[in-house]
Amino acid sequence: MSIPNSKIDHLGIAVTSIEDARAFYESLGLAIVNQETIESEGVKVAMLPVGESRIELLEALSPDTPVGRFIAKRGPGLHHIALHVNDISATFESLKASGARLLSDDLLIGVGGHLYFFIHPASAGGVLTEICQDSISDV
Amino acid sequence: MSIPNSKIDHLGIAVTSIEDARAFYESLGLAIVNQETIESEGVKVAMLPVGESRIELLEALSPDTPVGRFIAKRGPGLHHIALHVNDISATFESLKASGARLLSDDLLIGVGGHLYFFIHPASAGGVLTEICQDSISDV
Repeated sequence: MSIPNSKIDHLGIAVTSIEDARAFYESLGLAIVNQETIESEGVKVAMLPVGESRIELLEALSPDTPVGRFIAKRGPGLHHIALHVNDISATFESLKASGARLLSDDLLIGVGGHLYFFIHPASAGGVLTEICQDSISDV
Repeated sequence: MSIPNSKIDHLGIAVTSIEDARAFYESLGLAIVNQETIESEGVKVAMLPVGESRIELLEALSPDTPVGRFIAKRGPGLHHIALHVNDISATFESLKASGARLLSDDLLIGVGGHLYFFIHPASAGGVLTEICQDSISDV
């Protein structure tokens, strides 16, 4: 199976404060190009492009959110990695058939229409892993 | 400061066994293209290209090695991220001047002649971060 346009889509990094964290990335020559608050997930997200990928800084809107609980338990650091594939349905079915622990029963649709799902760290080498694909119109 | 050819060079993922871990990545369409043992660092490394980046699976040669101790303490998972920059000397000096905690007093030279250094997680958003640049002949 070959996935010619696979790439690292983004690295999600949990931070206590985007404002405090940004200086480090700026010293590497990276810049925040977009910032948005996703109330439904209790998180503020800042995106910093790097090559064909992005670093996504994740700041919890309150302690009682997924990112808030992550930071309380493990401190700031890598929250998840996201890989872009070109046939997300095939990847989903293949993982499901192999018995991998997936965090949803089906593909999810994100902001802007992209498709995604998460694989539990226990089935993904100890790293919470998101698989994603652009919406059909972007492919 | 702009770094047009910055990219995620690789993600270093500590695994208990490359042979056990590879099936997951192969189910995502990735493949091991190179595997080498670096005795001086006590590690076996398998490289899986993904877009312009690579996933590097790191297997300890014995428990008393950096990766062995990492796995004993935290379990398998993300060990470090590596960002490629186009002027590593400038990045090194800029971070040093800002008081960032660097793991070496100078740039290091890796296999194949590439330059690199590590930033302690305490100065890099909680993630052990490698900064690297190809050897001059590759740029």
